[in-house]
Amino acid sequence: MTRSALVSLIRRKKSLLCVGLDTEEHLIPEHFGQESHPVRAFNEAIVEVTHDLAVAYKLNLAFYEALGEEGWLDLEATIAYIRSKGDCLIIADAKRGDIGNTARKYAEAFFDVLGVDAITLSPYMGRDSIEPFLHRPGKWAIVLGITSNAGADDFQFMADAQGNRLFEEVISKCARWGGRDELMFVTGATRPELLRRARELAPDHFLLVPGVGAQGGDLDAVLDAGLTREGGLLINSSRGVLYAGQGQEAIPMARQAAKAMQEAMARRMQAKGLI
Amino acid sequence: MTRSALVSLIRRKKSLLCVGLDTEEHLIPEHFGQESHPVRAFNEAIVEVTHDLAVAYKLNLAFYEALGEEGWLDLEATIAYIRSKGDCLIIADAKRGDIGNTARKYAEAFFDVLGVDAITLSPYMGRDSIEPFLHRPGKWAIVLGITSNAGADDFQFMADAQGNRLFEEVISKCARWGGRDELMFVTGATRPELLRRARELAPDHFLLVPGVGAQGGDLDAVLDAGLTREGGLLINSSRGVLYAGQGQEAIPMARQAAKAMQEAMARRMQAKGLI
Repeated sequence: MTRSALVSLIRRKKSLLCVGLDTEEHLIPEHFGQESHPVRAFNEAIVEVTHDLAVAYKLNLAFYEALGEEGWLDLEATIAYIRSKGDCLIIADAKRGDIGNTARKYAEAFFDVLGVDAITLSPYMGRDSIEPFLHRPGKWAIVLGITSNAGADDFQFMADAQGNRLFEEVISKCARWGGRDELMFVTGATRPELLRRARELAPDHFLLVPGVGAQGGDLDAVLDAGLTREGGLLINSSRGVLYAGQGQEAIPMARQAAKAMQEAMARRMQAKGLI
Repeated sequence: MTRSALVSLIRRKKSLLCVGLDTEEHLIPEHFGQESHPVRAFNEAIVEVTHDLAVAYKLNLAFYEALGEEGWLDLEATIAYIRSKGDCLIIADAKRGDIGNTARKYAEAFFDVLGVDAITLSPYMGRDSIEPFLHRPGKWAIVLGITSNAGADDFQFMADAQGNRLFEEVISKCARWGGRDELMFVTGATRPELLRRARELAPDHFLLVPGVGAQGGDLDAVLDAGLTREGGLLINSSRGVLYAGQGQEAIPMARQAAKAMQEAMARRMQAKGLI
């Protein structure tokens, strides 16, 4: 999906919502257990009630790999189902990062075999671990900038003699390697001042923002810090949508949770004259 | 595999060799194409002629994920085949790194579902992305320290005001989080002075060293810089073994390449009184 298609989608759906399908078999409502493929059936039910509200879906690879080849089939089936519902950006949350020939293989695995639009990448190995994911029209590399977990402090804030911090170095350099049509950054929601700093360093790049909801990030603060004239944000909610309710209530409550987020986004976008 | 079992294996086989099964379907000899599962058949042939020479096998996940669910089955079948040949450390070269609940899922996917002994990890997200892989007796986290690719220079050498470089910070901190019985570091072979520095920072941890051979690293220089009383090194060769010869010569030449490396390792270990 190209940038202009993504921006149109954001305007049409009045939404920046990305639903994270971090589906765990033991957390999904019991009645899905009767299905022959419970994870797939649950994902389809979630997509069914959220696809008019979400502009993106993020599939966390760990949760599928933990199921072996059945998980791989769940992943493929879920992607096909999302596609059948019309335009949505599909992100493989894989946080890969490896040298040239391996990175090329991953690009092939994710973009061509799985057929997703975007993949998350870890920057530790530098430029040749990012490059193979660029220059593929309509495909996106999403590089970890600032993450929202406790461990983010361990290395991402290391500062050089001039006071540049690692995450700033990562965002500045990667924004030069990949343009706003092909590269995004993961920027955690829990510290809006850092999201603001990421926005300064990459004024035109999209930011994928996890951590709203379950991880404690505040939606309005994220919108204030990161919104651009084109939206410029994909705001992810995983557990906040997937596990909003229990039993027979799970799916209607998931829609309600997604709708509440989409409406809050629409209000802020309207207030800023974006839509 | 525990540390003491690994050290015994190194002494018994007089080897530090790790064979990297970065198998690419278009690079394997034509006659394997007639097999119903060419990658699996090739891997088995390689394992068959190297398992007495190698103490470890490293499976690069990208190459299997690029084949979809068939790749996942290849991976499982290859692991089962290696296990059937007796003791060897099996490493999933996955370079994962994600927050707590996701990292736990990956630990489950790799250690419990796939059943490997070790997984490579990227340190960017910090402690909570490493922790879930620790404290599992006989299982190993292998954290990226210094990589041997060109992009290593982009971030790994960033230095703070005291001159500590990022890779040094990573090795020092991770060596405190995980002991020598559960954590190793990836340390590229191409710059022995950096390997020497890694050894200073983590005197008792095993180092997994890729980059000998195809990537230009020199085996003797690596042994000089990193060998400890217990070995302390796993030296990986992927393309140098897998693609040592063509056609019907591929498998015998793979053995010859592995044997040459093992013998060079044995000589140096003998000279140092290790075996």
